[in-house]
Amino acid sequence: MKYTRDAIARMDGYVPGYQPGEGGYVKLNTNENPYPPSPRAVEAMRRACDESIRKYPPPMADRFRKAAAAAFHLEPGEILCGFGSDDLLTIAVRTFCDKGDSIAFPYPSYSLYPTLAAIQGAESVAVDFPEDYSLPPGLEKTGAKLTLLANPNAPSGTQLSGHEVRRLARSLDGVLLVDEAYVEFAGEDCLGLIRDCGNVIVTRTFSKAYSLAGLRFGFAAADAGLIRQMTKVKDSYNVSAPGIAGAAAAVEDRRWLEDNVRKIKDTRATLVRGLQSLGFHCWPSETNFVLARVPGHTAARDLFERLFERKILVRFFDLPRLDDCLRITVGTDADIDRLLGALDELLRGRV
Amino acid sequence: MKYTRDAIARMDGYVPGYQPGEGGYVKLNTNENPYPPSPRAVEAMRRACDESIRKYPPPMADRFRKAAAAAFHLEPGEILCGFGSDDLLTIAVRTFCDKGDSIAFPYPSYSLYPTLAAIQGAESVAVDFPEDYSLPPGLEKTGAKLTLLANPNAPSGTQLSGHEVRRLARSLDGVLLVDEAYVEFAGEDCLGLIRDCGNVIVTRTFSKAYSLAGLRFGFAAADAGLIRQMTKVKDSYNVSAPGIAGAAAAVEDRRWLEDNVRKIKDTRATLVRGLQSLGFHCWPSETNFVLARVPGHTAARDLFERLFERKILVRFFDLPRLDDCLRITVGTDADIDRLLGALDELLRGRV
Repeated sequence: MKYTRDAIARMDGYVPGYQPGEGGYVKLNTNENPYPPSPRAVEAMRRACDESIRKYPPPMADRFRKAAAAAFHLEPGEILCGFGSDDLLTIAVRTFCDKGDSIAFPYPSYSLYPTLAAIQGAESVAVDFPEDYSLPPGLEKTGAKLTLLANPNAPSGTQLSGHEVRRLARSLDGVLLVDEAYVEFAGEDCLGLIRDCGNVIVTRTFSKAYSLAGLRFGFAAADAGLIRQMTKVKDSYNVSAPGIAGAAAAVEDRRWLEDNVRKIKDTRATLVRGLQSLGFHCWPSETNFVLARVPGHTAARDLFERLFERKILVRFFDLPRLDDCLRITVGTDADIDRLLGALDELLRGRV
Repeated sequence: MKYTRDAIARMDGYVPGYQPGEGGYVKLNTNENPYPPSPRAVEAMRRACDESIRKYPPPMADRFRKAAAAAFHLEPGEILCGFGSDDLLTIAVRTFCDKGDSIAFPYPSYSLYPTLAAIQGAESVAVDFPEDYSLPPGLEKTGAKLTLLANPNAPSGTQLSGHEVRRLARSLDGVLLVDEAYVEFAGEDCLGLIRDCGNVIVTRTFSKAYSLAGLRFGFAAADAGLIRQMTKVKDSYNVSAPGIAGAAAAVEDRRWLEDNVRKIKDTRATLVRGLQSLGFHCWPSETNFVLARVPGHTAARDLFERLFERKILVRFFDLPRLDDCLRITVGTDADIDRLLGALDELLRGRV
């Protein structure tokens, strides 16, 4: 391509999960939350959509940093906000990795990571997860400037313990970014590591547990020195006024979050039981989705397509170790009933 | 700094204009619009802040692209949306400039440009504007992969003609990005060039004429092939649901825009007359701000500080060719009366 950098011309873009234009779908493909956000967040966003929106938002999103510092026992200077946690991943890549440097991550994991490396002209070093998705041997020895660890991991849904992550952080020469997009659905988190290990960044999103994917808001927590460097790389005004208001209100509404997470976890248990009774293998999920290996000689892609025909969207990855699996978001109980009913029919009919 | 790329550790971050935490200021420092946004945009944003915000927004912001294509006589495939036009500048830099490549721009211009080059590890080639801010001689001969032209220019407020910009585009080997952040306040625009010249990108923002700085929305228009390459570099979901809804409604409310622009232009004329009668030199403004050289032996920085004490915020740049000037945003008539009154007092009192 004329004008375009070779690194960009050569690469394929990241392909986000399918977003149907019209309604009527049971949408279990992009790990969205099936429940509405906190009413306090809705009220705060609406209030921010007033005359004051003619002004630029505070560049560091002070209102949010204060709320998050209180909720997570952090200092505001340890927090950097972004336009979704993808923005913070991009900022971290640009802060810590030069062209030609390495970025390491386990495989299979969030498929955006190699794309971020390619855009930066950095080398991707993918280290295979063992079959049980425990810590990939060798991940601590790649020499990468930046190691990206989705924990809980996508698309497996599994989680490494805080103890293991701490050990990994201490054995690395570079920065460890722990992408905790799904951590609210898990048993523990790694936020405490940012003070124990000066090379750890933890990212969070409001797109999953907080039901605010359309708002685009996330944050990174790290040592204040790392945050200051990352601040140089971010766009001047990289969060919106409705974003700051909505995310701050959401963080302060702990009861809403707890109720939401409890519902998702209950439905997740139902989904796993249902899938197992149909012969799927499910990896233990600490997220709002389940990775399920399809039973017997069924083709996962066919099953995905048959579900699509019935307006049930799940995720199929045509990639090694994933092409015999479906990744299924935990929807409402009704969504999951409909999915399990359809799977039952399709599998009896031998896809 | 340990961990940080040299390019980032060495650089200072971009410093956005001061955003006061509390009210009571006459805020003429960040080129915001003094009037509220279109009521249709407010209504659309509020409607988007409902339950549906739990879902990811359409990655390419189709609703907006359709509205903008109709308003500006473009094809949707010629449009890429971003989180403010700064996002689109970053995307362009990352699409077209490798580490070590050159990025050219006139001086003085938008002070973010050298920061964007530094983050990418690219070389900044600043080419001086003549005193009258006509086309900088030599700008067409830098060999840069990307030339950034704010037109109208900030902080001078001046504009090059479409004819001159076309000539520049045709003489360049690389991409010309025409940053039209302020173009709604000007006599002409360069959108038509994207079809005549395959190397032209035009960027627009909703932060100025549309009164939506807090929403974070902008777009780039260019040949569909360039847009496809830039799409690979953008974050997957780089605009919010309220952003898409609000910006689309704003684009469709042409009457509101025209009224708003007319008011600003009227007040701009009042501001310029007032400044001139106080002895300031004003460059001809095609924007919602005026660059004014302070009269006689007055120190611009002192004047800036004295205004600040009176809670009147204007912009002072401690930079060559700008350190004897103030950049003053066109506020309401009342804002400008208050500014001119304060200047009158301060200058009589000999700062």
